Amino acid sequence: MGSTGVRIAIDAMGGDYAPAEIVAGALRAKEELGVKILLVGDLQQIEAVIPPKTNMAGLEIVPAEEAIAMDEEPLNAVRKKRKASINVAMDLVKNNQADAIFSAGHSGAAMASALLRLGRLPGIDRPAIGTVFPTIKAGKPVLILDVGANVDCRPKFLEQFAVMGSIYSQYVLGMPEPKIGLLNIGEEDTKGNEAALRAYQLLRENTQINFSGNAEGRDVLSGEFDVIVCDGFVGNVLLKFAEAVGGVILQILREELPQGLHGQIGTAILKPNLKRVKQRMDHAEHGGALLLGVNGICFIGHGSSQAPSIFSAIRMAKEAVDNQVLQRLQSQYQILQSESD
Amino acid sequence: MGSTGVRIAIDAMGGDYAPAEIVAGALRAKEELGVKILLVGDLQQIEAVIPPKTNMAGLEIVPAEEAIAMDEEPLNAVRKKRKASINVAMDLVKNNQADAIFSAGHSGAAMASALLRLGRLPGIDRPAIGTVFPTIKAGKPVLILDVGANVDCRPKFLEQFAVMGSIYSQYVLGMPEPKIGLLNIGEEDTKGNEAALRAYQLLRENTQINFSGNAEGRDVLSGEFDVIVCDGFVGNVLLKFAEAVGGVILQILREELPQGLHGQIGTAILKPNLKRVKQRMDHAEHGGALLLGVNGICFIGHGSSQAPSIFSAIRMAKEAVDNQVLQRLQSQYQILQSESD
Repeated sequence: MGSTGVRIAIDAMGGDYAPAEIVAGALRAKEELGVKILLVGDLQQIEAVIPPKTNMAGLEIVPAEEAIAMDEEPLNAVRKKRKASINVAMDLVKNNQADAIFSAGHSGAAMASALLRLGRLPGIDRPAIGTVFPTIKAGKPVLILDVGANVDCRPKFLEQFAVMGSIYSQYVLGMPEPKIGLLNIGEEDTKGNEAALRAYQLLRENTQINFSGNAEGRDVLSGEFDVIVCDGFVGNVLLKFAEAVGGVILQILREELPQGLHGQIGTAILKPNLKRVKQRMDHAEHGGALLLGVNGICFIGHGSSQAPSIFSAIRMAKEAVDNQVLQRLQSQYQILQSESD
Repeated sequence: MGSTGVRIAIDAMGGDYAPAEIVAGALRAKEELGVKILLVGDLQQIEAVIPPKTNMAGLEIVPAEEAIAMDEEPLNAVRKKRKASINVAMDLVKNNQADAIFSAGHSGAAMASALLRLGRLPGIDRPAIGTVFPTIKAGKPVLILDVGANVDCRPKFLEQFAVMGSIYSQYVLGMPEPKIGLLNIGEEDTKGNEAALRAYQLLRENTQINFSGNAEGRDVLSGEFDVIVCDGFVGNVLLKFAEAVGGVILQILREELPQGLHGQIGTAILKPNLKRVKQRMDHAEHGGALLLGVNGICFIGHGSSQAPSIFSAIRMAKEAVDNQVLQRLQSQYQILQSESD
């Protein structure tokens, strides 16, 4: 491997369309973004999906004998299958042979592997899974975390999510002074469940972030907030609802628009515009989720990820590395720790 | 008042468009549904918005000197303003002068007034606010509760919500053997936060309901469940997100569809079909929320409710009365209590 260029380790065996779509997205990223790709997994399966005339410069295949299936209990599987692709890929980051990792496989296994092999960042109690939602304002996404790693959150976890999310929003998503919101059921500081009430106070007193108050469900897509923190239970419900609602709306459009002769003509004329509607509602543009709080840059893709999502996730990973997000997270919390000593 | 016909007390002063839209919706309901309407509020303001040639049969105006504003602290306001329209309307139900009540005003005040004046049903610890979402299956709505009354829920509250929701789904929404889901972050019974894990066991053991397991965020709109129970924190976030997402999608359609000459032509041709899309995504068809667990039939409308929503809510209230939902709820829990004695 060369000494320049961001190196991304890819779990080629993870995801519903692995390895074909994973490899396709990674190869595109290598060409368009100039990253180095380390494909981790079954040698034969990976080679079988690399097109014959592919430029192999910047591409490396790292063999891994096993893979973790979607229905395995994550912690056990990660411990027992030491040579699973997710573990081998994670070790590349640990041993500084890669700068970031991406997997569209079992997200619980990716998280367990990251925790066991990379460990947590100093000052972080619990890593969180963050994901980027598009908002009503074009080019102004919002980062939601946690969307599933921690179902019961103590208020200080939410505070840690806010600090990590703020750094990520600023240095990867390019938002200056990110506005941080606390997901809640009212705007007033007297609203919410016990955890939210206490988290509100912690966030308001934290001088490292630009806390903008409570964000209600209706504010998630308004573009008024750059980062919204919540526990992993409500975040996961929201994420899965949001992913499904796009499909519901598209089905309603498919059922209603072509009705009648004028409907069929109008729909045919509008085809390119309807395609743009679909794109704006599509999550693929925004890549995967990220695991914030472990000692490495980890991106997690949806199990159903195909090449465009893989490409987007790798682009985000490159941004994170280029902008030294890990170093910023590490130093942020060193400061915090020395302050509290 | 006659001895036949369902009598609905309406808080004519509650809501952003009160009293004009409230009265308009109520008058339509009187004509089309044959219900008797008791409009509660400021006599002059109400009379001013009743069209001159209105048939006054089945219509009564019950004066109330005060009203509760949206920014008042609900419990205090309900206690201090004894003659507020919501209190006077609630007393009509309490004194058996009305069979049900509807208010689009301060929902916290409506809830406080219901609790203070009607009290809870026997066997119910906490009333819940339920709301009906459309699903991807036409004509198959899903009832979600709680959407905001109880931010921290004990597992047995969720069980009570399930039993009440099942009765409501069967006798008002017309679902035979309603399928009950527990909102959670995975399908397996080992998933979820502490409250969800314990609620799962209670729901599985309850023989009064048809428990169909965990419902994830993606299952909310799938039509696979007839009732989904959750705590009021996550339910409220979900409700407000769902209400907003329709608007976001409509804005994307408005921005993208008319672009270019073909876009303008196609959009013009599709106008009637786009209107149907808007209608299907509109909550107005499904009326208000209901307050389940108080000793009376109470419907609560969105503050922004206009005549069509008011009409829908009154139709639902009539269904609830016609199908003796309150009596069924009362007897259900008498059985439960005698079983546990």
